[in-house]
Amino acid sequence: MPRVKDYIDSTPLTKEELLKIVNISLAIKKSIKAGHYPQLLKNKSLGMVFQQSSTRTRVSFETAMTQLGGHAQFLAPGQIQLGGHESLEDTARVLSRLVDIIMARVDRHEDVANLAKFASIPVINAMSDYNHPTQELGDLCTIVENLPAGKNIEDIRVTFVGDCTQVCASLGFIVTKMGGHFTQFGPEGYQLNEAYQAVLKANCEVSGGTFTLTDNEEIGLRDADFVYTDVWYGLYDDERSPEDMERIFYPKYQVTDAMMKKAAPHAKFMHCLPASRVPNFPTEICEVTNEVLDAPYSLCWDEAENRLTSIRGILVYFMPKLALDSVKADEAKAELDSLLAK
Amino acid sequence: MPRVKDYIDSTPLTKEELLKIVNISLAIKKSIKAGHYPQLLKNKSLGMVFQQSSTRTRVSFETAMTQLGGHAQFLAPGQIQLGGHESLEDTARVLSRLVDIIMARVDRHEDVANLAKFASIPVINAMSDYNHPTQELGDLCTIVENLPAGKNIEDIRVTFVGDCTQVCASLGFIVTKMGGHFTQFGPEGYQLNEAYQAVLKANCEVSGGTFTLTDNEEIGLRDADFVYTDVWYGLYDDERSPEDMERIFYPKYQVTDAMMKKAAPHAKFMHCLPASRVPNFPTEICEVTNEVLDAPYSLCWDEAENRLTSIRGILVYFMPKLALDSVKADEAKAELDSLLAK
Amino acid sequence: MPRVKDYIDSTPLTKEELLKIVNISLAIKKSIKAGHYPQLLKNKSLGMVFQQSSTRTRVSFETAMTQLGGHAQFLAPGQIQLGGHESLEDTARVLSRLVDIIMARVDRHEDVANLAKFASIPVINAMSDYNHPTQELGDLCTIVENLPAGKNIEDIRVTFVGDCTQVCASLGFIVTKMGGHFTQFGPEGYQLNEAYQAVLKANCEVSGGTFTLTDNEEIGLRDADFVYTDVWYGLYDDERSPEDMERIFYPKYQVTDAMMKKAAPHAKFMHCLPASRVPNFPTEICEVTNEVLDAPYSLCWDEAENRLTSIRGILVYFMPKLALDSVKADEAKAELDSLLAK
Repeated sequence: MPRVKDYIDSTPLTKEELLKIVNISLAIKKSIKAGHYPQLLKNKSLGMVFQQSSTRTRVSFETAMTQLGGHAQFLAPGQIQLGGHESLEDTARVLSRLVDIIMARVDRHEDVANLAKFASIPVINAMSDYNHPTQELGDLCTIVENLPAGKNIEDIRVTFVGDCTQVCASLGFIVTKMGGHFTQFGPEGYQLNEAYQAVLKANCEVSGGTFTLTDNEEIGLRDADFVYTDVWYGLYDDERSPEDMERIFYPKYQVTDAMMKKAAPHAKFMHCLPASRVPNFPTEICEVTNEVLDAPYSLCWDEAENRLTSIRGILVYFMPKLALDSVKADEAKAELDSLLAK
Repeated sequence: MPRVKDYIDSTPLTKEELLKIVNISLAIKKSIKAGHYPQLLKNKSLGMVFQQSSTRTRVSFETAMTQLGGHAQFLAPGQIQLGGHESLEDTARVLSRLVDIIMARVDRHEDVANLAKFASIPVINAMSDYNHPTQELGDLCTIVENLPAGKNIEDIRVTFVGDCTQVCASLGFIVTKMGGHFTQFGPEGYQLNEAYQAVLKANCEVSGGTFTLTDNEEIGLRDADFVYTDVWYGLYDDERSPEDMERIFYPKYQVTDAMMKKAAPHAKFMHCLPASRVPNFPTEICEVTNEVLDAPYSLCWDEAENRLTSIRGILVYFMPKLALDSVKADEAKAELDSLLAK
Repeated sequence: MPRVKDYIDSTPLTKEELLKIVNISLAIKKSIKAGHYPQLLKNKSLGMVFQQSSTRTRVSFETAMTQLGGHAQFLAPGQIQLGGHESLEDTARVLSRLVDIIMARVDRHEDVANLAKFASIPVINAMSDYNHPTQELGDLCTIVENLPAGKNIEDIRVTFVGDCTQVCASLGFIVTKMGGHFTQFGPEGYQLNEAYQAVLKANCEVSGGTFTLTDNEEIGLRDADFVYTDVWYGLYDDERSPEDMERIFYPKYQVTDAMMKKAAPHAKFMHCLPASRVPNFPTEICEVTNEVLDAPYSLCWDEAENRLTSIRGILVYFMPKLALDSVKADEAKAELDSLLAK
């Protein structure tokens, strides 16, 4: 049984607990790549509550459950009565009786926190307006797999370029938790706020890591092992116009091949995806160029795969374990056989 | 093979058949609580046709199939062509070739009855405007698990308080089928109609049970072992305004702790859920107080779990059995191995 | 590993390859009818991308995966970010990392072709505005199971009556691929266009088959072993009014019992379904009469079942195979056991 019931935020977990989940994730990945699917979630049901559309998160959770022997139920907006005819608290209580574990992608962080509070089973935060903790562990898998030669996890320098999205915050959380060095290179007014900074500060005090917020490109990129970005168009209630995106971020914060050259020579590019990409995106006001997305130093597709990698580990780590009571199970079998024989 | 192909209504089933389903349900529950999942529905597919949103019913069916080795397909409104480009009859014929069993939550009872008529495979009614038979068996599991000391199922007194919803009707059906004593305590004009009364009467003639419809609280609650209620806001085409709810039901028919004291001393509270609950519900014109919902005598969460309990039993009972023809299976295996080896 | 990665179109596959898929399909059908479900897709995940509603195709894919030990994910319109915030190319790249195989029902054929181009895993076309290749193989199963006495597949005469839908085109493709004789009996202006005719011509040159387009009923029906039709109301952007349907097709091209008598004496009726059927359909301007749909010579329900039959074979044929590396799998197991024991 894990010390913390839910995975709403990486903050209450220790560095060692988070690395254990990463190690479980990487061992399962190795097993599946070798053709063996460990049936660690056999007969288990995951309830997936979505208030928003999602590709990577939804498909990763559903594939993870299947590969490990269980099943994920997709409960789309409007398909269950969450917050409609039924209070979120009651839905949490009811789902606790009907499935083994819940994940939720919500509009407001307090909703997933409340689901966890009222559910007796584990709840996984599959992104809120505050953070994106399953992305954190997927990214940590990718970073561990791509550590620069001679570096330990405590030595990594990770730079997030652009807007302080919840992915930016989560990246800062996990890097400082590990004792690494996190930088956000972004414009004033779009840097992580004081509440986020307080978390980073507390993490660094425990771990020995550091964090820096800057709008200076040289400082921002210097010696970076990993350069990370996310979209500019705003999320939730704050969708931005292309004009605003240009005024705030473009071209200074667009990740280009030239910008990558200002990082460490071995620097890798990361993106949580989806990426704004010409010609699908209507203008060139994109957070990254196609050239960078498709470069040999781009890890973004491996990173997408590691959403699945880490979600398998998260599910295995948090799933309640049920010890077999073979006396009662045999009794039940005898009763059942007798009833079905009639 | 069950005597009756479909579970559209409890009326065509005998008391013994219904109790057999309950016993199967409780034996499977015992087995799963002991950590063993009987794979009684291995490789089987359930088609779930929904014309309305649902939490408990949908999740219960999907978890039930998974735990017993099968799979449930969620066919949401607009996702299949039922009644659109294709007649309901033809959809029934086609689904009969593609899945093993069907459940349907429909707006009009005749739709689920027609699905059953034209399908060659079993059809389960997952609630219509007429009745809610899977709720009936879930509630019967809960009642059996909570029989007052010294009472048999034939001795139970069950009072439904409030509006004659299809859950009220179904509760009356199952209690009188068992030979128990059913009372609806509700206002004139909102009591079970003559068609429903005819079913209750026929049940009682066979079983020795009784039924009473009354707007007198003393008569309604006296000696009740179980006090049950359902929402007041109306269903289907008849959504009621809060003003109408107040005029018709409030406060006389609200289940309060004071009302519970008028029932038997050991009385338990039941609710099919979702419940109207302050502050999620905008007014205090609710069918039950939060105090009762959350009281130690409230069974509503156990009752929600027993939706899953009974649905596992229903699926096992009605699922078509396929005897293994090992000669043909071996022939097919040889053919397949030879084709796949090429 | 199949020679062709994707199943977007039957054209790049040889007659032998297509017949191999049919034989695999029929062997699996035989096994399941005998009560044995070969677990050929154990732990595998299918991503189902739908831009349109569907009954037969969606349910067939989902049942097929379940019966063979895997799982299908239903990715409905608006539930993933395909072509919204993310380019179709990037969604193809990402899904390639998260599932084992993709199927897509799309509005425009170029979309499924592009998914296949950018995905590293197999993509199955589950119908586009150009063709319907899974229908082709299902129909080929039905034809093989119902070959007239003494005839080989190269001898069959198949007549499609009515509008040149993508099902008409696909039927022509598969019949001429096999070396059979395909006729479309339809009005001028609604016969297969030159692009389609070029494919039929190329097929016939290889196979020795023939094709005929005619608005002459005697020529159209003469000696037909199978008479096939599809709806008249138009698909995609071209929904037709009942007046237009009457003007173009009715009554000349309605398949009636009288028309069936002009085909071979043993002729069978086929329809991909859904069928327009009175009284569900508001007028009698239907492509077929109820009498024909429900006649003993109607194969339409067997044909619906063979959607499932062929889709099982298609999935088994195209699913990537992963050889077990038992050294690495054992290593991973040891790591995992050690991590989980802590």
